[in-house]
Amino acid sequence: MSAAVQVFAVVLRHGPISRVEVTARTGLSPAAVTKAVRPLVDAGYLTERPDERAPSRLGRPAMPVQVVADRAFFVGVKLTADEVIAVRTDLCGGTRDVVHRPLTSTAVADVIEVVADVVGALATGYEVACLGVSLAGDVLRDTGMVRFSPFLNWRNVPLADLVSAATGLPTLIENDVRALTVAEHWFGAGVGVSSFALVTAGTGIGCGLVVNDVLLPAGELGHVAIDVDGPECYCGGRGCVEALAADRVVLAGCSTVVGRALTMPEAIELGRSGDPAVHAVFERAGRALGLALAAVANLVGPERIVLTGEAVGGYDLYAEQIRQALAAQAFGAAAACELVVRPLPFDEWARGAAVVGIQDLITRSGAARGSAGAVTLPAR
Amino acid sequence: MSAAVQVFAVVLRHGPISRVEVTARTGLSPAAVTKAVRPLVDAGYLTERPDERAPSRLGRPAMPVQVVADRAFFVGVKLTADEVIAVRTDLCGGTRDVVHRPLTSTAVADVIEVVADVVGALATGYEVACLGVSLAGDVLRDTGMVRFSPFLNWRNVPLADLVSAATGLPTLIENDVRALTVAEHWFGAGVGVSSFALVTAGTGIGCGLVVNDVLLPAGELGHVAIDVDGPECYCGGRGCVEALAADRVVLAGCSTVVGRALTMPEAIELGRSGDPAVHAVFERAGRALGLALAAVANLVGPERIVLTGEAVGGYDLYAEQIRQALAAQAFGAAAACELVVRPLPFDEWARGAAVVGIQDLITRSGAARGSAGAVTLPAR
Ligand SMILES: [Zn+2]
Ligand SMILES: [Zn+2]
Repeated sequence: MSAAVQVFAVVLRHGPISRVEVTARTGLSPAAVTKAVRPLVDAGYLTERPDERAPSRLGRPAMPVQVVADRAFFVGVKLTADEVIAVRTDLCGGTRDVVHRPLTSTAVADVIEVVADVVGALATGYEVACLGVSLAGDVLRDTGMVRFSPFLNWRNVPLADLVSAATGLPTLIENDVRALTVAEHWFGAGVGVSSFALVTAGTGIGCGLVVNDVLLPAGELGHVAIDVDGPECYCGGRGCVEALAADRVVLAGCSTVVGRALTMPEAIELGRSGDPAVHAVFERAGRALGLALAAVANLVGPERIVLTGEAVGGYDLYAEQIRQALAAQAFGAAAACELVVRPLPFDEWARGAAVVGIQDLITRSGAARGSAGAVTLPAR
Repeated sequence: MSAAVQVFAVVLRHGPISRVEVTARTGLSPAAVTKAVRPLVDAGYLTERPDERAPSRLGRPAMPVQVVADRAFFVGVKLTADEVIAVRTDLCGGTRDVVHRPLTSTAVADVIEVVADVVGALATGYEVACLGVSLAGDVLRDTGMVRFSPFLNWRNVPLADLVSAATGLPTLIENDVRALTVAEHWFGAGVGVSSFALVTAGTGIGCGLVVNDVLLPAGELGHVAIDVDGPECYCGGRGCVEALAADRVVLAGCSTVVGRALTMPEAIELGRSGDPAVHAVFERAGRALGLALAAVANLVGPERIVLTGEAVGGYDLYAEQIRQALAAQAFGAAAACELVVRPLPFDEWARGAAVVGIQDLITRSGAARGSAGAVTLPAR
């Protein structure tokens, strides 16, 4: 990473920030920071302004550096089986506009058409540096290929190239949980820790892992086995976290004990009103989730885990079991791992896709497909 | 990492190696490689010699670069509850000498005395750059503290400082599984992959993880729960991998089905001779180990897992169950994870401690306590 890129990433994540702090966080010399900041200011990415609230002791106001949010825009798209959610963000990851559009077909061409339409609505009139698209499944950022998406039933779709051709924008794709992990690490509950995990619980159980500030191409928590004799899972395994704690499993369990088909809001309502059998189903799922979090804490050792996803809506029904199982099973140093529970609606997932674009611009990984209108940082 | 350090690390792990390949593996320019190699050759760490087997097309022989093994020596010590195992290695990690010495007391002062004695025997007459000491438990390389060692019953022992004072050598300590992981990654079955796991099965179940060529301070696989309703574990958890697959558990299970107390060789013998009840105990442990390996593959996504430890001695009794459980539970890309099974006797664990010293010299992490006789690399 060039000094310019390091400095820009630190200012983006921590700005407004003094040069002294930039020096401390990057490990660069003061001279190198000054040399890196100058062309970034000249190019309009960074700005320096006096901070009246914190005048320096010499009487001159401190000049914190910050990113010029409007210097570049990004569009992020999250695909679900029945909806396209898209946002436009600024260079600081701030959401400026949101569009939701239903999907009536999951055929590749139909989805591309809706995506192009939505992106057009968001991008018109703005200089969009990069478009990020996220979806569940086996998604390869480097090649732009969706190897497998179960909910869209896609195999080997060159999605980045197709979307780039349809929109005229440089396009990146990423697994949706990993994209959300990047957004939380850079701008959300993961700021300030270099080792971080995000676990999503809902339709599936997902996990994104950041180790030494690098996103791992792994984190398949949903199919870690936590019950050697547990129920079979669609993956071919047995006793998977998903087979014990996914929404559909909880709902099926509640429906069985009640003797009729419930909706999730009904099940949550029954659990809250004190139905012991329904509550026990949630408790069992909570225990499974707690063991899953403990597996992450024990094996990977993040400083912080963020738990989110649709399941967080009924979190009060099993929060105690999650925390108990995590505490009982976290071993040694893993016990210090901090758990943060927070709801992140699909708009935030779409923002995650945009943040992958911001990260790509800044670290210049060069993974985006297509190149029209790409913003570039000065080399040094 | 300076260019000199990058070049040296690549030559150490892959040499003899051509400059062209050094350039490719480090990503440095040819000029930067040449600039880095020169002072290392002058200082006697590297040497260039013509490779007669591979003359270049221009008629001049190729000049592969390699490390001068005898330029520096290292001592590695592995502590067990009843024995000190120590080796002297050269700069290439080659074992030159081995000493085993029984421990009759686990009092800190007594252990230090035996270690100093053994190290003295190995170091006399050699310029030893660094001493590495490894042991099971919560061991902090950076501060040189043993926070907790269950088998020695030590808490908060400043082991690196004590050993350095007793031996006069710069001393590093590390968790024994992690030290072995470093050795395997640099010189063993982990060479060539940047993401690598080592799992040890025996008295305990341990795991070392290397991600993007960096050793994680995590890997507590032994207490990952794989049986939500399983037996209680000494850690306070339930259904831990250790509670299902550690040697003592397998032995207790075999003794129960046979109706008398067995030794491990007796249990292995009975299993091999076809006793179905004994064989079933091994099979169940093998299934648990396979699920543990799958948890590593799914969550962390290493390219390769090395399985080792005392349990590998009876590997034939549950190899099939390990591989079956791993294959059934590995999801998506994790199915490509390669499993290598290999016995690594305690001499290799002691060598691991020495390799931690070599790694520290090369990456100049500066973690060694004490400074007498330290070898340093040129800055650039
Ligand atoms: Zn599964
Ligand atoms: Zn345990």
